[in-house]
Parts: sequence; C-alpha cells; structure tokens
Amino acid sequence: MNDLTQTPEMLIATMGAKARRAAAQMALASSEQKAQALIAAARTLREETTKIILANRTDMERGAANGLSSAMLDRLRLDDARIAAVADAVEQVAHLEDPVGKVIDESERPNGLKLSRVRVPLGVIGIIYESRPNVTADAAALGLRSGNAVILRGGSEAVESNRAIHAAMVKGITEAGLPADAVQYVPTTDRAAVGAMLRAVGLIDIIVPRGGKSLVARVQEEARVPVLAHLDGICHTYVHAAADPAMALQIVVNAKMRRTGICGATETLLIDRAYPEPEALIGALLNARCEVRGDEAVRAMDPRVEPVEPGDWDTEYLDAILSARIVAGVDEALAHIAAHGSHHTDAIITEDAATAEQFLGRCDSAIVMWNASTQFADGGEFGLGAEIGISTGRMHARGPVALEGLTTYKWVVRGSGQIRP
Amino acid sequence: MNDLTQTPEMLIATMGAKARRAAAQMALASSEQKAQALIAAARTLREETTKIILANRTDMERGAANGLSSAMLDRLRLDDARIAAVADAVEQVAHLEDPVGKVIDESERPNGLKLSRVRVPLGVIGIIYESRPNVTADAAALGLRSGNAVILRGGSEAVESNRAIHAAMVKGITEAGLPADAVQYVPTTDRAAVGAMLRAVGLIDIIVPRGGKSLVARVQEEARVPVLAHLDGICHTYVHAAADPAMALQIVVNAKMRRTGICGATETLLIDRAYPEPEALIGALLNARCEVRGDEAVRAMDPRVEPVEPGDWDTEYLDAILSARIVAGVDEALAHIAAHGSHHTDAIITEDAATAEQFLGRCDSAIVMWNASTQFADGGEFGLGAEIGISTGRMHARGPVALEGLTTYKWVVRGSGQIRP
Repeated sequence: MNDLTQTPEMLIATMGAKARRAAAQMALASSEQKAQALIAAARTLREETTKIILANRTDMERGAANGLSSAMLDRLRLDDARIAAVADAVEQVAHLEDPVGKVIDESERPNGLKLSRVRVPLGVIGIIYESRPNVTADAAALGLRSGNAVILRGGSEAVESNRAIHAAMVKGITEAGLPADAVQYVPTTDRAAVGAMLRAVGLIDIIVPRGGKSLVARVQEEARVPVLAHLDGICHTYVHAAADPAMALQIVVNAKMRRTGICGATETLLIDRAYPEPEALIGALLNARCEVRGDEAVRAMDPRVEPVEPGDWDTEYLDAILSARIVAGVDEALAHIAAHGSHHTDAIITEDAATAEQFLGRCDSAIVMWNASTQFADGGEFGLGAEIGISTGRMHARGPVALEGLTTYKWVVRGSGQIRP
Repeated sequence: MNDLTQTPEMLIATMGAKARRAAAQMALASSEQKAQALIAAARTLREETTKIILANRTDMERGAANGLSSAMLDRLRLDDARIAAVADAVEQVAHLEDPVGKVIDESERPNGLKLSRVRVPLGVIGIIYESRPNVTADAAALGLRSGNAVILRGGSEAVESNRAIHAAMVKGITEAGLPADAVQYVPTTDRAAVGAMLRAVGLIDIIVPRGGKSLVARVQEEARVPVLAHLDGICHTYVHAAADPAMALQIVVNAKMRRTGICGATETLLIDRAYPEPEALIGALLNARCEVRGDEAVRAMDPRVEPVEPGDWDTEYLDAILSARIVAGVDEALAHIAAHGSHHTDAIITEDAATAEQFLGRCDSAIVMWNASTQFADGGEFGLGAEIGISTGRMHARGPVALEGLTTYKWVVRGSGQIRP
C-alpha cells in the first residue's frame, strides 16, 4: 500500500491537495446530501460487519503477540455489538443540526451595503488518534456533517480495523454522491506521517488529537497547524461554607468516583474551612474506596488520609485518588484553581447565589459549574449530540466542541454598485 | 531602562505574568469602568501632547540621521492634529459596545442543568508593529475595551514616541482604577524580544502583527502562539457577462484606484469573455494612470497594456498596477481565485442574482462581495467601529476583526445538585 519512494511530506501534500478539492465539494453539499451520506455510511458499516471483524481479528492477534495489555486489547476489540454501536453513532450524527449556512448576524450599512456572517466549514480536519477504531467513524462523521474533508491517522495497532471501517464508510459516502477524498486514511503506519500532518500548514486547517496525554503533548508541542485539544483535566470541586451537606456529599462522590478515567472527573477537592461537615465528605470518599491525599487539616479528619505531596495539586490521577485541602474562602479556592488547574472544568457547591456567581465569573475555565458534578463536562451531556473533543485552549472553540466548532464564517456583502468614497 | 542581565525570555516571562494578573482584573472590570479608563486615557493623551511631540522629535531626528525614507518619516511623524486624532480614536473605542458578558446561547437540559455560553476576554494580547506610533494607542484601546491585557512591541524607529504615548495612556488608565500592567510596553528594542513573544505559549494568548509583509511573514513563520493576521490581500473583481457596464466601470476603477496601498484594493481583474464592454474597463483604468498587465486578449484591447508574467497573478502590487485576464465564465473565475487568491476579499459584478449567489457561496474567501468595491473590506466600513486587523486565517475570527474577535467564551453551568448517572 505504501509507495516507498514517497516521503511522508509528499504523501501528506498529495492527500492534502485531494482533501482540499473534496472540501470545496463538501462545502457546497446540502445538509440533506450530507445526512444521506452518513446514513449510507452507517448502512455500509453494518453490511461490512464481518469484514471489519476479520480485520479486527488480525489487529487483535498481532496486538496479543506484541504483548498489548488487556486494557489496550479491550479498547481495540470489535464485535457485532460494538460495530452496531459505531454505525448507530454515525447515523445519530446524520440527524444533528447542520451548522453550515447559518447566518450568525446581519446588518445594513447607511450606504445600503447588506452584510451577513454565514457559517462555512473549516476545510480540512486532521484527526490523529490511538487504539480505539471507533474514532475512525465518529470523527469522520462529525467532520463530514459539518461539510469538511477529513484526514484520519489512527494507531498502528488498529490499522486493519481502521482501514476496514474507513473502506466501509467511503463506500456509503460515494454511493450518496459525495467525494471519496472527503474521508482519507493515511496509508502508512510510519510515525513520520504524523509529523508531516502537524506541519501541514495550508493543507490541514485544524488537528484534533484523540488519545492519551503523551499523544496530545506531542501534537501540541510539534504542531504548526492549530490544535483543538486538552492536555489535562485537573478539575476542582470547591465546597463552600454555605453548601448543602447532603448535596455536597452526593456531588463530590459522583464528581470523583462515577468514572475516574474521564477528563471531567474531579481531581482536587477544596473544602471551605467554614463548611460544617468536612469529615463526612472525606469519610464518604474513603468508604467509596477512593484514596485521599490531604493537607494536615484533612489528615486530622481521618487516619486513612495519606499526606499530600506538592506535585499532587498538579496531577490528573484519572484514578480513584483525590487530593484535598482546606481553603480559607472563595478567594483562596480561586487562587488554588488559577495556580494548579488546567482550565477544563471547575465547580462550586453552595446555596449562596452571590458567592456562586462570583465563582462562575472569576474562575477562568472553559466550563464553570454551580451545584453540579464536574462529570457532566461532555458534549453529549451539554446537548451537542456528540463531541469531537474538549478544548482548554482559548481560541476558536472552548469546552466541548461539536459541529459548530468545526466551522468558521465568511462575510457576505451584497451591494447595488456602491463604491468607497 | 533595560536590565542587561535579563534574557528576552525572562523579560517576556515577567511581563507575561504581570499581564496575566492584570488580565484577571480586566476580565472583571465593568463595561463602564473600561470605558471611563479609555476616556481618561484619551484625556491624558491630549494633556501630554507636548511631551509626545518632543519624544517624537527625537525619533524623527534619529530617523532622518539613519536615512529613513520620506514615506517612513511621514508615517512616524506626530503633530498636534495627529495626536488629537489618536486621542479621538481612543475615545471612540470607549463608546463601542462591550462584547464581554454577552450570552451567546442558553439551554436547559432535561435534568434541569442550565447552560449558557458567555463571552469572556481572550486574556493577553501581544501586538507587534512597525513605525506608526498611533498603533500603540489604537491597539491598546481595542484590547482594553474587550477586557484584555496588552503587551505592545513597536518598531525601534518609533520607540520614544511609543513610550510617551504608552506613558500617557497608563496615566489615564490607572487614574480610572484599572491596573497599569494591563498595558505594558516592551522596554527593549532588542529584536530577540519579538522572538520571545512569538514563543510565549501560555503567557500570551494571541499575537496581532501590524505592519508590512515581512513583519507578518516573520510572525506567521516563527509564532507558536496563535496569530491573527493576513499576509496578502490579493483581491479579485470578476466582471460577469451580465454586469451593468456603468456600474462595472465605476466599481472596477474604485476597487483598484481609490487607494492602491490598502489590503482590500483589487489586484486582479477577471473579465467574462461574454461581457460586452471590456475595452471600456481597461481604457478607464489606463486613463486613471493604472498600469495594466494583461493576457493576450486584454492586450488586444489597448496598445498600452503590458504583457502579464505568470508571477503577476500571485502578486499584491499595493500600487497603481493591475493584472487582467479574460475568463470563460464563473467556473474559470472561481478556479483562478482559488489558485491565486489569498482568501481576503473577492467580488463579482453582475445583474444576475443566481450567478451572484453561486459566486458568493463558492468563493472561499473571508469576504465575498456582490456589486460593491473590494475597497470596502474594512472594520469601520463594516460597522465594527474599529478593527485590530483583517484575518485570512480560518480559525477563531475571519475578515475584519474588532472587539468580538478579542474575546472567547466560557460555558456556565448552573445546577441544583445534579449528579451524572
């Protein structure tokens, strides 16, 4: 499949040029046509289930032989049910509202010029991901629904699965009359191809890394193309003096323990020193089998609390571990979050609306919450239907990013012969 | 003024940390407070007119001694009228609508969570500019009005003027109770400080270069921080077969000749081969003392037309020079623009609404126009009040960028104890 005379740069340049042409067609495709293409892709994914499972078996066998962990093998594994879920997810994206063509605002100038800002696709989206083959379908679906062309680069351990999913989707998309080049899969497992994507200014408009921290860190470090991502999700829950104790207990345990491996899980608990029942919070976490690392005041509450090390405040555990400290008030809580947070999701629990609004206004994170679990930080939970990722950057799109974040706008000016004086 | 033991990186790190703290204060300043600060800054600029003119005289004398061209010296020169205009512009920005705090959208989830997206400042804006000292005030005003902190780095030829303007503004801003560190001027003319700004990821959120092509090219090439800019303004006017000849004549001459040095000036004229009066267009341009470089068909229209070289199609003349060719129709016009344009501003002249809408939809530029002069590509003309620049990038903000483009948003989630199931 690889042309050995081709450098990764040449490969990505060729793919990028094809993607740009396909993107021009995609930008003009009607909402209905894009939806039909995704419905067709869902159908071809279902039809090719056996082919995809066979391809996946090759990946699984090679993975086992290469000593992949059972967790990694589980991420890689596809079966009938998982492929059905992948196809369903593609079909769901087909039914999401298409942002393209939406008028953001309109105005008429005194000279009669009519101005409008209209949403248009971003162009070419590069997706770089790891061992979960479902990302092939999910990311392609979101990219296409918003009128973009997509260049996919999955992990080498999932290469056969990804190729089979990609081939099935292209079949459906082309049957619906959209260009095959709108979804391309990088046909080499050479890691240098990732570097070429990251440097492909003018060919790729945005890179979305989907995977673990080392992938995201490499992408953010090397990319010359804009990146939509978050590196860390060091989320805080601050239990204010005026928090309702029953609510605080329920939210804190959920925010940490519902799923410890997601980016919206709370990693640090800040308890106001005037909060009346801190021991109950710490006890409930410990009883839920959460390791608690606390400052001296927290350690005094329960002998099971471990001492916190300075590095803990900057650590995203993604595990049943929590750092906890007592703070003097909302100022100290906000100062802690400013010093150690990652601008992802931070919450306050309080019955005092004025303090809550102060926290919501002053906390400089992509998502700020009042009386809710940080585990809600998710495009689906936000009603976006699906998300391409969560961004802790400040530019373009912030927090959960779905279809709108994969678009930009153009200014359309309609005149009647105006010249500038 | 410079601490010689300090590296440019240390200097920018220190300034960036101060700016971040000031940005946190600025983000919470009320719209009224920010407006008052700019009105105060306008006043202190007027009060310090003599000081600023004396500082400017130093720059002018050094510039003359260093052999600056008369055009450059004119750009650098400040007098009473120019300083009054600078102060007026700052005061005008005070009266622009503040985007901060605007609710972009709101929703309520079935579980009762209330979501809203609220505009917040971007944070710290770095402005890198050349010889026009008025940029010091203009850029600072736009940054502050939208709740940001600003780090300014002007050209070394204007350093005394810039420092004097900066000092006057800081006086007004601090009198109004806003932090002095919200507007900092890089206190060294060492070019390495620019490099340090361009690499200041996490310290500076966005860089806006204001100046000639070589400055913008360097910034785009070296920056690791996002950049808001345009490198080229290779704007096209396409005169369609169904254009009204009188309107076409008026628009084409205006689009090219009103001011030849601005980025929205038309550089290439595309004439439909079915347009009935192409000779009149070419003749009018030549009579307006525009040099016309044409393909063979255009050269056949008038002996004064020079032959076009292939590089002409990719050249932003910023001068009374125009490249011109005959195209077979809207497809060829769009293909030419796609191959040679810079995604800045492109226009169609036609009385045929269906063709116009096709052009507006298919042309992938930040600004697309119908029956209007490309010279309208300007934030002021678009009703934005002022602009920090025009962006040909696709991310975040496109076309003329004013206050809204210097903001981002945060998600605010208000609950009543919701936990995620």
